[in-house]
Amino acid sequence: MAAHVIFSDPKLDTVALDTLKNGIGGSRLILPAKVASSVLEVGEADPAFGEAEIAFGQPLLESIYASERLRWIQVSSAGFTRYDTPEFREYARKRGLVVTNSSSVYAEACAEHVLAFMLAQSRKLPESLAKRIPNGEPEWMQLRDSCRPLRGQNVLILGFGGIAKQLLEMLAPFRMNIVAMRRHPRGDEGVKVVTSAGLECALAEADHVINILPDNGESAGFFDRKRFQQMKPGAVFYNIGRGTTVNQEELFSALKSGALAAAWLDVTTPEPLPQNHALWTLENCHITPHTAGGHRSESLTLVKHFLSNYERYSQGRELEDRVI
Amino acid sequence: MAAHVIFSDPKLDTVALDTLKNGIGGSRLILPAKVASSVLEVGEADPAFGEAEIAFGQPLLESIYASERLRWIQVSSAGFTRYDTPEFREYARKRGLVVTNSSSVYAEACAEHVLAFMLAQSRKLPESLAKRIPNGEPEWMQLRDSCRPLRGQNVLILGFGGIAKQLLEMLAPFRMNIVAMRRHPRGDEGVKVVTSAGLECALAEADHVINILPDNGESAGFFDRKRFQQMKPGAVFYNIGRGTTVNQEELFSALKSGALAAAWLDVTTPEPLPQNHALWTLENCHITPHTAGGHRSESLTLVKHFLSNYERYSQGRELEDRVI
Repeated sequence: MAAHVIFSDPKLDTVALDTLKNGIGGSRLILPAKVASSVLEVGEADPAFGEAEIAFGQPLLESIYASERLRWIQVSSAGFTRYDTPEFREYARKRGLVVTNSSSVYAEACAEHVLAFMLAQSRKLPESLAKRIPNGEPEWMQLRDSCRPLRGQNVLILGFGGIAKQLLEMLAPFRMNIVAMRRHPRGDEGVKVVTSAGLECALAEADHVINILPDNGESAGFFDRKRFQQMKPGAVFYNIGRGTTVNQEELFSALKSGALAAAWLDVTTPEPLPQNHALWTLENCHITPHTAGGHRSESLTLVKHFLSNYERYSQGRELEDRVI
Repeated sequence: MAAHVIFSDPKLDTVALDTLKNGIGGSRLILPAKVASSVLEVGEADPAFGEAEIAFGQPLLESIYASERLRWIQVSSAGFTRYDTPEFREYARKRGLVVTNSSSVYAEACAEHVLAFMLAQSRKLPESLAKRIPNGEPEWMQLRDSCRPLRGQNVLILGFGGIAKQLLEMLAPFRMNIVAMRRHPRGDEGVKVVTSAGLECALAEADHVINILPDNGESAGFFDRKRFQQMKPGAVFYNIGRGTTVNQEELFSALKSGALAAAWLDVTTPEPLPQNHALWTLENCHITPHTAGGHRSESLTLVKHFLSNYERYSQGRELEDRVI
């Protein structure tokens, strides 16, 4: 392989860093003086960035704009918010700059997280794990009766990327009625697809509304009062995309009134929610602290995914998880 | 259909009872003076029982032995403990008495309950739902890192009936390595099967040990100190069969020492466990109050399943869920 200069700023454990060093052959690796504390966090501007042809991590926009050598960015998260603007897309197009993300690394764990939420809801795990009631009592009968197998229920998935594809596979055995919303349907989704024009009807029919929307100009506050009111009474709302896509005050109202049966959120604004936030007070609001994509050996998987794309890049092949 | 006399003792709601009455055509329905409080509870001896050719529910052994007309029992649970003895099987064989159970009614909900447990464990839901930690902090990294996708992990299922079959379907997308233990392998299981002779090796390899054993003479205290010690360090133990199959003192020790990573139990002895029981004190022991088979319209589904078998019985066809 030809030698390249690679700037890498994700926080990596020793095994992952060694794998990266060994995997790039004769290329030069530049590590920043200060490493980000998570794959989501933006690093500090680094004077050495300008030497890099490839950036792996969360490079700053100002560093990208200042760089003359940069050709390819592999974002170390599934989201790529700060690059997902018309301006940046136009800039990248003009410069021939390619942007990939790491959605493959997190898709399986995220999809499992959603299914864990759905099954915890269908089996009433939070309530059941807290009860010590005898068989046969009215409360026990009521708890059993409140469980509802997934089979035959309606699901609406918003945001059709790697996570949705993994989730569809995992949901197949349950024979649910699945609809996906996608900005630009391609016909390869394998389920019924609607655009925003069909959203109102889809929301009215869904028992489970799964929000995997990315954070960009179009999605800010996407789930507002109107959309919560369009949902079927007793529907369950899930968010493992980004917290910014939800109006949390309106979500609170919909949960408090019982219009929605429950919400399961892995993302909020901000993260974590302040201790006195109203959503913490609701028994039907279940929140995990942005752990949906997490899994053992995460940073090693992240590096292996980068190296796989690095090999493709070196060979002039199409990159995986390309987003721009 | 020919007219039959049917004794029915499950506690049924109005819709389910009406469905039963309408579904048996010209046959006569005998309801006991006192109805059981759950499908699991045994009713009282009823003098009218002797008139019945068909019994639906949980008939008493003494009533069965005293009856001259009884030909078919449909047990209203998935377990059929009191009938699962060599003596009763021999008695039924001699008399030509057929016993079916209602495992089809509960299998899907039970399998969902197991998968809900497995995913709650793999996504660390109990811990994650309780944490309010910022992205990037060491505790957050550790929590993400402790999650482990199911793919490629080893599963051992003990007890291969309707629940196991449903569970295998639901686990297929996760591409796990699955082994089942069955008393009498038939070759139609679709996964690797071991008998008790292969159990020690299977226990040593399994990351997830799923106990769906019925309660009978062979299974009492099946999971004892020896078997917990044979398990892989860090394995997770699930029980949705019957509480009697587990030595709870030894389970406590295995969980307390960390030899087992966690246990997820839907059944215990007794149910519920006393308030001062040691298992309640363990953070890695998660207990639901025998709700695994529960689902909306449960008694209606139970009746429909009976009526489906009743039609088969009237037509002289093979019955579903036959156990004796």
